[in-house]
Amino acid sequence: MKHKHIRQRVFFIISKAEEGDRASRAFDLTIMALIVLSVTAIVLQSFENLALRFANWFTAFECVTVAVFTLEYAARIWTADLLYPNAEHPRLKYILSPMALVDLCAILPFYLPFLGFDMRFLRLVRLFRLLRMFKLGRYSEALQTVVAVMKESASQLIISILMCLFIMLSSAIIMYTVENPVQPEQFPNVIASLWWAICTLTTVGYGDVYPVTAIGRLFASIISLVGIGIIAIPTGIIAAGFSKAIGQTTQTKQEPKSYCPYCGKKLE
Amino acid sequence: MKHKHIRQRVFFIISKAEEGDRASRAFDLTIMALIVLSVTAIVLQSFENLALRFANWFTAFECVTVAVFTLEYAARIWTADLLYPNAEHPRLKYILSPMALVDLCAILPFYLPFLGFDMRFLRLVRLFRLLRMFKLGRYSEALQTVVAVMKESASQLIISILMCLFIMLSSAIIMYTVENPVQPEQFPNVIASLWWAICTLTTVGYGDVYPVTAIGRLFASIISLVGIGIIAIPTGIIAAGFSKAIGQTTQTKQEPKSYCPYCGKKLE
Amino acid sequence: MKHKHIRQRVFFIISKAEEGDRASRAFDLTIMALIVLSVTAIVLQSFENLALRFANWFTAFECVTVAVFTLEYAARIWTADLLYPNAEHPRLKYILSPMALVDLCAILPFYLPFLGFDMRFLRLVRLFRLLRMFKLGRYSEALQTVVAVMKESASQLIISILMCLFIMLSSAIIMYTVENPVQPEQFPNVIASLWWAICTLTTVGYGDVYPVTAIGRLFASIISLVGIGIIAIPTGIIAAGFSKAIGQTTQTKQEPKSYCPYCGKKLE
Amino acid sequence: MKHKHIRQRVFFIISKAEEGDRASRAFDLTIMALIVLSVTAIVLQSFENLALRFANWFTAFECVTVAVFTLEYAARIWTADLLYPNAEHPRLKYILSPMALVDLCAILPFYLPFLGFDMRFLRLVRLFRLLRMFKLGRYSEALQTVVAVMKESASQLIISILMCLFIMLSSAIIMYTVENPVQPEQFPNVIASLWWAICTLTTVGYGDVYPVTAIGRLFASIISLVGIGIIAIPTGIIAAGFSKAIGQTTQTKQEPKSYCPYCGKKLE
Repeated sequence: MKHKHIRQRVFFIISKAEEGDRASRAFDLTIMALIVLSVTAIVLQSFENLALRFANWFTAFECVTVAVFTLEYAARIWTADLLYPNAEHPRLKYILSPMALVDLCAILPFYLPFLGFDMRFLRLVRLFRLLRMFKLGRYSEALQTVVAVMKESASQLIISILMCLFIMLSSAIIMYTVENPVQPEQFPNVIASLWWAICTLTTVGYGDVYPVTAIGRLFASIISLVGIGIIAIPTGIIAAGFSKAIGQTTQTKQEPKSYCPYCGKKLE
Repeated sequence: MKHKHIRQRVFFIISKAEEGDRASRAFDLTIMALIVLSVTAIVLQSFENLALRFANWFTAFECVTVAVFTLEYAARIWTADLLYPNAEHPRLKYILSPMALVDLCAILPFYLPFLGFDMRFLRLVRLFRLLRMFKLGRYSEALQTVVAVMKESASQLIISILMCLFIMLSSAIIMYTVENPVQPEQFPNVIASLWWAICTLTTVGYGDVYPVTAIGRLFASIISLVGIGIIAIPTGIIAAGFSKAIGQTTQTKQEPKSYCPYCGKKLE
Repeated sequence: MKHKHIRQRVFFIISKAEEGDRASRAFDLTIMALIVLSVTAIVLQSFENLALRFANWFTAFECVTVAVFTLEYAARIWTADLLYPNAEHPRLKYILSPMALVDLCAILPFYLPFLGFDMRFLRLVRLFRLLRMFKLGRYSEALQTVVAVMKESASQLIISILMCLFIMLSSAIIMYTVENPVQPEQFPNVIASLWWAICTLTTVGYGDVYPVTAIGRLFASIISLVGIGIIAIPTGIIAAGFSKAIGQTTQTKQEPKSYCPYCGKKLE
Repeated sequence: MKHKHIRQRVFFIISKAEEGDRASRAFDLTIMALIVLSVTAIVLQSFENLALRFANWFTAFECVTVAVFTLEYAARIWTADLLYPNAEHPRLKYILSPMALVDLCAILPFYLPFLGFDMRFLRLVRLFRLLRMFKLGRYSEALQTVVAVMKESASQLIISILMCLFIMLSSAIIMYTVENPVQPEQFPNVIASLWWAICTLTTVGYGDVYPVTAIGRLFASIISLVGIGIIAIPTGIIAAGFSKAIGQTTQTKQEPKSYCPYCGKKLE
């Protein structure tokens, strides 16, 4: 009886905080702070002198973080049957859920040092856990609108990405054919040429690779202009999506009219 | 009698697969796989070491591909009178259709090695054959919307491209006049200057050519700002087009109302 | 009497061609061809070897062009009273009209070689004369829409350009303060720093000047992100303008309804 | 009595000019001219030879400017109780208002030379004072629309900026992991990698830092394409906002109809 009670209490603490539940709120804030600090540690550790100087501190902090995250992970598995009361295998279901896999990726690298290569960057996935934070607070409605617009325009956006990939591959092959004999170092193969195509179509233009032949430049000019379209089409799609979403919001929010706006007649 | 029957069967196989027609479906998938593999081969062959090491494999695969494509091309000509039952010269009509010309370009380079220069990149046109794929499946409606919007905005987009070309040529001539005396290597003639103008107006900015004189930089600044407009106008046109297209779709999809939304009267 | 008749005929020829007037049409096409050839000559003359090899041809062609343009200019002044029948000083009015000033700029450099510096690039203004071409033909409606949208959004666009200039000047001064001590060659003064600011805000990014200090890069990052807004605002304004313009066109084009679209009642 | 009268007169002069009040108008113009000249002086002083040659003039002008601004600041504090007639501590309230803090920043650096480092660039804040100018004149309505649209879309824009920051940090950490072993000079730490991420996502692409490994380029390609979305989303939001704002303006401006546009019935 008592065991069950403790488990229920743990479940409420690690679940999303309800108003008034201080322990749950404190738990949420602790986890968030640990995530932010953990990512900050990744950034700081990339500075060689800091990494050497405070090596012990970083290791200690990493141990604490992983310990907390492991405990949390274990607690979530332990209380999985409260999260999925109707599932046949609630713990397996939880372990295979995307959120739990992210949580696992965030701690696994620590336990697998014998794999031999640096997997510490996997700690990055902890950032994804911050996404839950967006669900809370005042920006949740705006986030929903952004996501809804992206979803509604999804198939049109995918088509424009496919068109984009098609143009990229075509222009990479043409550019390779044209520029390879003159600049074998810059355009050694189609994959390298693809790098140029992407840099140009997205108008990033680092300037590490660019055509030098007349025909290559002519072709690059056409591709650059096409690049404007490549940017314009998804922008247009998204703009139209937002226009519609904002329009709908306005319409939904309008109070029901009590009279015809045109005839002035009363509506029953 | 039997000959005609075989021809009809071949026609159905090489036509777009109808539901349930397994032979036709298998044929479509084989052709698509060959196209994708063929383009992959072009990409891989551009790696010199791979091209040398697996030279025989590439040649063999190319022979197979061209053989299949040639057979398909022949079969399509053979069954042209079933595709165009009312045409006077169905075979000639098919040969001159854009799709058939693309098919021809995809195999011709193989048969014309005596032309002396590398036409292998023409195999690229095989990619265009993939476009048919878009016609199938769930994205066809989205593709139609994108194409419809581009078509409807066509004349406005052409005007903005003409304005763009006008600005490009003007700025290239001005920049040549200003920068040529100082940087004869970077701005040797108006065509080279045009390359700079396109790189700047499309905001790609490789950095291989840029003005160094004060007046050149002043002018380049103005052109860069104009470049924002150059991007903004087609984006605006396309966004407006999508707004309209999405609006219309919504309106069409609306269920018929059972009462006037304004007067509140019942509609019979 | 006869003199007046000739003048009237000349006026009709040099005016915009009406349908059926072959002489006027031929005149228009000749002038347009001369403009295009003249601009082509500017482009070709910029190639040093071509300029030297065909020097006589270029000079001869330039003489012919200027002769024709001068005759046209003279003819337009001569018939100015037919163009402005109610003006007090029709010839002066014509000479001071923007179109006539462009025409003058297109021929003047030829007559002023003693000025000592190369004014040949002023021949470029001949391109502006091509703008009249846009007035004709099928694209005139689209051009009108584009111009109308730009005009309607003008004050909002000007505000966003002013905001842009304000941000540019501010960031140039800050960047000069931050980067000058470290890179005196790249950021020698605020004007050079302004060049960097424009390249960054318009996202051109040549890469000839970029910050190297930590604070400079931090600031440049903020400016780059602001640059997205700088592009987004005019694009948004123009997109909204086109949305409205297209919506209005659709509404105007709708045939008058003979029944209420909602109630289904007949309208008298 | 007289003292109060003078103070009231001073207050009207330094307040926004009403029509017909010449002294107030003259005061406004003088301040604006001083601001513009003062910023011009900052620009000119950045040219070393000018700064040395006209050092005395610049110092003298700076003294005059600061004197006038200090007097204005003092006058505004002196008349603060007329600006906030109902406030308990009108002078303190004025001193802590954003506008007054800007005014203070604009003059303080002059009085604090003993701080030891160059704070002259703080004079830049004088530019902000020009913003008041926008409030006047014909562009005020357009500015209000721009500001209103930005405000209404604020929460969506903040979400897209947060998403952008999230993508930036993620890609910076990944890129550091991938590129640091190969290019330790270009990607020494995550902060330097963040500089690359911002340059790429905003499509500025200076070209001072770019990936060279295959996996780095693959990843940079994905990030570049995401960069298009990063630009597209705020552009779409702003475009939709302007669409709505312009639509509302049109609707508000519409004259009241005298008959129902649908039923054709007369409205009383």
